[in-house]
Amino acid sequence: MTGAGAAVLTSSTDRYRYEQLITFIRELIDGGVFAPGSRLPSVREISVQRRISISTVLQAYRRLEDQGIIEARPQSGFYVARKSASSLPPPRPSNPPRRARDVSVSRMILDLLEYAADPRLIPLGCAIPSSELLAAGRLDRYLARAARVKGTEHNIYTGPRGDARLRQEIVRRSALLGQMVSPDEIAITCGCTEALMLALKAVARPGEVIAVESPTYFGVLHVLEALGLKALELPTNASDGVDLGALDQALATGSVAACLFSSSIHNPLGFRMSDEKKIALLKLVARHGVPLIEDDIYGDIYFGNEPPRPFSAFDRRAQTIYCSSFSKTIAPGYRIGWILAGRYLPKVLEYKFASTLCGPALPQVAFADFLSSGGYDSHLRRIRRTFENNVGHMLRAVEKAFPDGTRVSRPAGGFVLWLELPKRLKTRKVLDLALREGICFAPGDVFSASGRYTNCLRLSCGHNWDTRLERAVNRLGEIAASALAGD
Amino acid sequence: MTGAGAAVLTSSTDRYRYEQLITFIRELIDGGVFAPGSRLPSVREISVQRRISISTVLQAYRRLEDQGIIEARPQSGFYVARKSASSLPPPRPSNPPRRARDVSVSRMILDLLEYAADPRLIPLGCAIPSSELLAAGRLDRYLARAARVKGTEHNIYTGPRGDARLRQEIVRRSALLGQMVSPDEIAITCGCTEALMLALKAVARPGEVIAVESPTYFGVLHVLEALGLKALELPTNASDGVDLGALDQALATGSVAACLFSSSIHNPLGFRMSDEKKIALLKLVARHGVPLIEDDIYGDIYFGNEPPRPFSAFDRRAQTIYCSSFSKTIAPGYRIGWILAGRYLPKVLEYKFASTLCGPALPQVAFADFLSSGGYDSHLRRIRRTFENNVGHMLRAVEKAFPDGTRVSRPAGGFVLWLELPKRLKTRKVLDLALREGICFAPGDVFSASGRYTNCLRLSCGHNWDTRLERAVNRLGEIAASALAGD
Repeated sequence: MTGAGAAVLTSSTDRYRYEQLITFIRELIDGGVFAPGSRLPSVREISVQRRISISTVLQAYRRLEDQGIIEARPQSGFYVARKSASSLPPPRPSNPPRRARDVSVSRMILDLLEYAADPRLIPLGCAIPSSELLAAGRLDRYLARAARVKGTEHNIYTGPRGDARLRQEIVRRSALLGQMVSPDEIAITCGCTEALMLALKAVARPGEVIAVESPTYFGVLHVLEALGLKALELPTNASDGVDLGALDQALATGSVAACLFSSSIHNPLGFRMSDEKKIALLKLVARHGVPLIEDDIYGDIYFGNEPPRPFSAFDRRAQTIYCSSFSKTIAPGYRIGWILAGRYLPKVLEYKFASTLCGPALPQVAFADFLSSGGYDSHLRRIRRTFENNVGHMLRAVEKAFPDGTRVSRPAGGFVLWLELPKRLKTRKVLDLALREGICFAPGDVFSASGRYTNCLRLSCGHNWDTRLERAVNRLGEIAASALAGD
Repeated sequence: MTGAGAAVLTSSTDRYRYEQLITFIRELIDGGVFAPGSRLPSVREISVQRRISISTVLQAYRRLEDQGIIEARPQSGFYVARKSASSLPPPRPSNPPRRARDVSVSRMILDLLEYAADPRLIPLGCAIPSSELLAAGRLDRYLARAARVKGTEHNIYTGPRGDARLRQEIVRRSALLGQMVSPDEIAITCGCTEALMLALKAVARPGEVIAVESPTYFGVLHVLEALGLKALELPTNASDGVDLGALDQALATGSVAACLFSSSIHNPLGFRMSDEKKIALLKLVARHGVPLIEDDIYGDIYFGNEPPRPFSAFDRRAQTIYCSSFSKTIAPGYRIGWILAGRYLPKVLEYKFASTLCGPALPQVAFADFLSSGGYDSHLRRIRRTFENNVGHMLRAVEKAFPDGTRVSRPAGGFVLWLELPKRLKTRKVLDLALREGICFAPGDVFSASGRYTNCLRLSCGHNWDTRLERAVNRLGEIAASALAGD
C-alpha cells in the first residue's frame, strides 16, 4: 500500500521525482494525451525515459491507482481509468431564491451532531476526521511536555490574542500563503467556529444580511441563526463557486452587510476557485465596500501540488477577515483556530475578551512547540494523500452503487462528496431508512437557509476506507434506488 | 509558619480540635467576650481547660495571628488585635441612579488587563491569583498523563456540554452545596466569562435591562456592553448586598429582563449574603417572574468554616442560572468553568455550540482525573488560609498607610479589598501617579456603568504577601494622602 511503499522514498530527490512524475502523468491524462481506457507506458519504459528507478515509478502508478485516476489490469499493465472522464455528471449550478431570509437550522444540526457522537453509526455524516487517521501523537507529546515543564509559567490568562509564540508560528505559515501579517494582527480562537462568530459580530448587527454560497456549510448557517442574521444564498457552481454576476446584483442592492465564502476548498461542493476569479471577486466586493469573511478550514487539504491561496493573499484593501483552524488537519480535540481580522481586529478582540476572555494556555503552547519542530508539513503531506485516497474510493463506490441520474462533485480537496439525486427523491427519507440500518450521512436541506437540496446529500470521507464503509455506501445506493423505484 | 506547622496535625482528631478551637476563639472575640486589646488566656491555660495539646493550641493562635485577629506580644502572650474591631469604618451603602443605562467600560478594562500582563508592575490591579500561590503542579501532571495516554481517544469534539466525567465530578461537588442536578444539566464553559455570556444570551435580547449590584465586577459590565444590554445598578450594602426594597421597586416596573448577582463572596465588596436574605431575594424575583443569574466564582474561597450556599441551592422554581469556574482557585490558565442553566439549558447549549462548538477535550479530562483523585479539597483549605492571610496583611497595611477618612471592606472571602476614600479624591489621578512608580490597582469607576466610585479603588491580594507588596501599599497611601492634601 501507499503508506508502506512511501517509506522507500528515503531521499528528498526520490520524493521530488516521485511527485514530479505524478504531476506529469496527471497532466497528460487531464490534457487528453492519454484518453480514458487507453494504455499507459510501462513502468520500465518510464524508468528508462525519465531516469527514475523502477520502484519510484511503480509507487507513482500505485498512488494514481489509489486515487482512481488509473487502473492496473493483471498481465497487461496500467490504463487510464474510465472514471477520470467520470461516468457521473457534476451537480448542476444552484439557483436559490434571491431573497434574504432568517435561518432556522439549529435543530437539524444538533441531530446531526448527536449521530456523529454515536459510535454505533457508520460515520458518513459530519465532516470530522477520525483520530486514528490524524495520528496526533507527536502533538500530544508536546502537550504532555508543556504540562510537565511549563505548567506554572502558563497558569495565566494569555490575553485576548492568545499565546505569542503560537501566533508567530502561524504568521510564518501564513506568509507562505501570501498573507503578510504580524503576530499582533492575529487572535487565537476556539476553532474556526469562534473565528467565524467573531468575524460576523465585528461586521454585522442582528437583522442584517450575509451573502453565502448555496449550498453552504451548515455551521455557517448556525452561526447566522445564533446572531440573528439573515442569509442571502447566492447561485453557486460546483466547479468554481459563486456566480459573480449574481453577487454583483446582490451587492448593488446595498442590503448586504458582508459576504462569507469558502477560501479555497468548499464544503460541501469541494471546488477550488481560481486565483483569477478570486481577484475579480475581491474587486467586486471592494467596489461595493462590503467586507468579505473567508473560511479556510480546508485550505491545507488540497489535492495536487500547488497550495491554494486565500482571498486575503490577494487583498490590497484589507477588507477580508480570514478564519481557519487546525481541526480538520490534526486536532479537532484541541479547539485551536485563528482569525486575521485586519481593520476589524479591535472589535474582534473586544468581543473575544467579553465572551471567553481567552482560550486555555497549554494547548496553545503545545501547538507552538509542535509547529516550530517542523513535523507538521510532512504530516499534512501524509493526510492529503490519505484523504485523496478516501475520496477516490468513495467516488468509485458511489458510481457503482447509486441509481441512474445521480450527480456527484469532483473535490479538489477536503474530504466530502456532494451528491445530487433525481429531483423526486427526498434524502431525508433515505436518512430515516439508513439510520435504522446504522448508517448516517448529512441530508442536503441542512446546507440551505431556504430548505433547498432536499434531493442532495453529503458523504464524509474522514475515516480510512474499509469494507465497512464500502458496504455502507452500497447499501445507501440500494436504499436510494428502491426509494426512487417507487413504493 | 502556618504551612510547616500544619504538618504536625497528623490525625483527623487533631485537625478537628484545631478547627474547633479557632472557631471558639473567633466567636468569643466577635461576641465581645474579649475586647480589642485585651489579653487572651495563655496557651497552657487553654491546653489544660480544653484538653488539647499545647502544640495544637499554639498553632491555632498562630493561625489567628496570621489572620490579623490576634497579636503576639513578646514576653507577654497573645492579645486581641485592635484591628479586628477595626480602626477604619466600612464603605457606605451605595446609592446609584435609578435608571438603566448603556455600558461603556471596555476601553478601561482592556487598559487594566494590559497592566495585569505587564510583569514590571506590582500586581494590585486585576484579581488574578499568582500561579506560584495556586501551585497547580498536580493538575498539570494529570494533563501530561492525559495527553500521553488518552490523546487519541480524546482528539474529538466533546459535544456542547463538555466532557462527561468532568460533569459528573462537578455534580458531586455541587451536591455538597445543595445543588441537585444531573450531569446532563451542566455545560462546561470557557471560564466563568463564557458562562455569564451564555446565561445573558439565554435570558435577554439587545437593549434589555439587567439589574446588577453597585459596585459590580467590571467583567459583568463588559459582557453587558458586548451584548448591547443595559445595566440597572442597584443600591448595595458592603456588608450584605443589594437592597431588597430597591430591588422590589425595580422589578415592579416590569422593565428588568434578569438580575445578575454574586452568589456568595462579592467582587469587589467581599460581603457574604446570609441564607435568609438569599431566600427572601429568591422569593422576590420569583414573584416578579424574573430570572436570576448568579456568579459563584469566589464561592470556594470563603473564610471561616461554613461554605456558603449559592442561590440555586435554595431555588425551588428553577429560575436561577448558576455560573462558576476553577479560575480563582487553581487554574486560570485552563479556562474551565461551568453553567447550570435549568430551564434555559437548551438555549445555552444552542448558543454555545454556534459560538465555539465545544472546548478542548484534554484539559477537561485532566480536571476530571484531578477532581476524582480527591486532592482538590485539601488544596482549597490551603489556599483559603493563604488568601485570608494575604487579605489580613493587606488590611493592616491599608490601615497604617492610607489617609484619614478611608473606609475599607471586611471581606468574608475572596482576595480583594475595596477602599472608599474621601469624596474629593479621584483615584484615576492616584492611578496615573502610581503607574509611574510601577504600581497598579483597579480604580473605582470601572466597577460602575454610571461612572460612580471615582473616589474608590480595589486592591488585589492574589499574590503572596511580601515586603514588595507592603512597600507598594505604603506608597499608594502616601500618594493618596498627598493628593488629598491639595496641590
